Amino acid sequence: MMASHAESTARLRLGVVGLGRAFTLMLPTFLADRRVQLVGACDPREQARRQFERDFDAPAYETIEDLAADSNVDALYIASPHQFHAEHTRIAAANRKHVLVEKPMALSLDECDRMIADCAEAGVKLIVGHCHSFDTPYLRTRELIGSGEFGAVKMIQALNYTDYLQRPRRPEELSTAEGGGAVFSQAAHQVDVVRLLAGSRATRVRAAVGNWDPARPTEGAYTATLWFENGAFASITYNGYGHFDSDEWMDWVGEMGKPKNPEAYGGARRLLQQVQTADEEARLKAEGTYGGTRYVSPSPTDDATAFQHFGPIIVSCEGGDLRPMADAVMIYRPHSRDRMMLERPTVPRSEVIDELYLAQFYGVTPLHDGEWARDTLEICLAMLRSSEEQRDITLGVNVEDTQWRENPSS
Amino acid sequence: MMASHAESTARLRLGVVGLGRAFTLMLPTFLADRRVQLVGACDPREQARRQFERDFDAPAYETIEDLAADSNVDALYIASPHQFHAEHTRIAAANRKHVLVEKPMALSLDECDRMIADCAEAGVKLIVGHCHSFDTPYLRTRELIGSGEFGAVKMIQALNYTDYLQRPRRPEELSTAEGGGAVFSQAAHQVDVVRLLAGSRATRVRAAVGNWDPARPTEGAYTATLWFENGAFASITYNGYGHFDSDEWMDWVGEMGKPKNPEAYGGARRLLQQVQTADEEARLKAEGTYGGTRYVSPSPTDDATAFQHFGPIIVSCEGGDLRPMADAVMIYRPHSRDRMMLERPTVPRSEVIDELYLAQFYGVTPLHDGEWARDTLEICLAMLRSSEEQRDITLGVNVEDTQWRENPSS
Repeated sequence: MMASHAESTARLRLGVVGLGRAFTLMLPTFLADRRVQLVGACDPREQARRQFERDFDAPAYETIEDLAADSNVDALYIASPHQFHAEHTRIAAANRKHVLVEKPMALSLDECDRMIADCAEAGVKLIVGHCHSFDTPYLRTRELIGSGEFGAVKMIQALNYTDYLQRPRRPEELSTAEGGGAVFSQAAHQVDVVRLLAGSRATRVRAAVGNWDPARPTEGAYTATLWFENGAFASITYNGYGHFDSDEWMDWVGEMGKPKNPEAYGGARRLLQQVQTADEEARLKAEGTYGGTRYVSPSPTDDATAFQHFGPIIVSCEGGDLRPMADAVMIYRPHSRDRMMLERPTVPRSEVIDELYLAQFYGVTPLHDGEWARDTLEICLAMLRSSEEQRDITLGVNVEDTQWRENPSS
Repeated sequence: MMASHAESTARLRLGVVGLGRAFTLMLPTFLADRRVQLVGACDPREQARRQFERDFDAPAYETIEDLAADSNVDALYIASPHQFHAEHTRIAAANRKHVLVEKPMALSLDECDRMIADCAEAGVKLIVGHCHSFDTPYLRTRELIGSGEFGAVKMIQALNYTDYLQRPRRPEELSTAEGGGAVFSQAAHQVDVVRLLAGSRATRVRAAVGNWDPARPTEGAYTATLWFENGAFASITYNGYGHFDSDEWMDWVGEMGKPKNPEAYGGARRLLQQVQTADEEARLKAEGTYGGTRYVSPSPTDDATAFQHFGPIIVSCEGGDLRPMADAVMIYRPHSRDRMMLERPTVPRSEVIDELYLAQFYGVTPLHDGEWARDTLEICLAMLRSSEEQRDITLGVNVEDTQWRENPSS
């Protein structure tokens, strides 16, 4: 991480598009990483704009057009709802702002292609994240694989059991056709991590999705097999229905790198039971996010003790296994197993600022660029299609995959 | 379990076909379960026969024909190598002996069909096991599902990381065409457990197999998705290359229900490194099994403290998750999680004798009968074919599946 070196150098002046949950999850990073300065924002919610102006002494606009026109802004962090990512990227590029756009990059490959073209034509950088594939334990595991000590990657197992679908949602987040559900939101992480570790282009996908809560009619679970050009294959499984919690297998460190209390079981479900209607639920979500009455600002003493992660992962290579944990990489060699401890994180998600900063000031091509994220979305779309059509989906050849949303899965 | 009730009733007089590793794993059961009495055996190895005669004061024959002709024998436990199961079942049935045959039932569906027909014509019972689907934690989880409290089963995740492929083997055990490898030997357990928990007929399979140790050229790993008639799907993953050990997620209780020392990492690999050739390896295996110089008889004080198991499994139902452990079932309800402790096992694998005893003396149709085990083999064969042909295999319709072995996977 570069945070300590960068204090004396230029700061990256960032404008925030959308002060919702994604922003609150990045806020500890923006507050702690001296390489970045929040110089503006936009959001349709007035109370969010008021809080931003109070917190940062910087303008908060109602529309992205006004923010993008602000000459004080170098780059835009686009954290608006998924369905706006493409249009907001277009506006950012048209105003010569670099783009950091949240995952999923967009909802169709056509949108991704337009975003890539818009940024290329404008000569601005495009980075997609935060995504958990930025997390240091995965980057470090990737380096270990790259060392060659363990031989080729042959099989990856990734699983994650969370309460994703029990958290308060806006109605569109519970509709797959509008970009909701575990495949768009959560596979976007898991597929990205597995691709990073496989180190090869994915060629085929076979998936089954689960959608079994009538009150929340979108994918809450899935399992999929991915095949890679280098011969590796991966099994990924996700369940967001809020029962078994696989952080038990991550030393009870939660997704955000903080200790988790196993006794808090069922908390998301209890909170959700306080609401009766979709409107009440959307309000509950808004109240808990930036500017809302239930929102709690991150505390400077609220440091993560470990890195963020996306659940248990086992990478099996020809000569050993590697298992990224929140504070270590478990290394299983032929005759010994070791826990390679990682440094303690100083700034959460500083890996995102690393890529953004290097791209903006040093012209370094980011790992998580538009092409990379487009391929992850293609796999997510292929998962939905595979489950619907009960067959393998070949990647990189079916241009019709972009039509998936016109024939959505039930 | 019935063990305590049965002491005053008739004992089941069992003849053992094959005094190899499978027999040694059942021996603690035969020694401790008073419902069964070993009255004879057969094995081509003279030192195994001599030890049997010493240990049990009962005849040990060179051939199954002589054992099957012994009028003192009620039933045969067929624990010969996989490729002999069908022929040995035929001989048992022809001599009116009930059959308990080890998994995998056989190597082709044709063989299974013949075994079922042979036993039906002779009017003898056919039970296939031990298989881990007999283990009490799975039977108890099945009862919990049957209670209806949790609604329908929707998704099952099963995984197991072991040192299976690092243990000493005979050459045929390292050849898939001869019935070796993780699919025939290990998926036979995992598929059986998952079928039992899904409670429905499997309809489709998609699999990828891993075969990446040139010195042991058979499947050491696989991942597969199974779809069931009731709408459930399952993801199963196995890795026997001896690195990460998933018993870490089973409270460090090993497959045999005994505490495992995590510090013994790599033991199988170190033992295997003592041999140079296939002959030496086969000898190493023989030495460690019944009658061999390295063989250690089970001690009466060597009791298991927990049930046997086949690795971490999570059953996701509409209304909660169930996770069978070695000494408990973890129950994840909407608002609480509980560890439902199981009784301590008295006799290991007594569940097998339960089925055998009830079948022989009370005419109860066993759960693990020939038809049941044939369907598990069909899935294992379909896994090999799916990986080879890169497509879904539909179950129950492709009679050509029986031809798989004539076109083996590389």
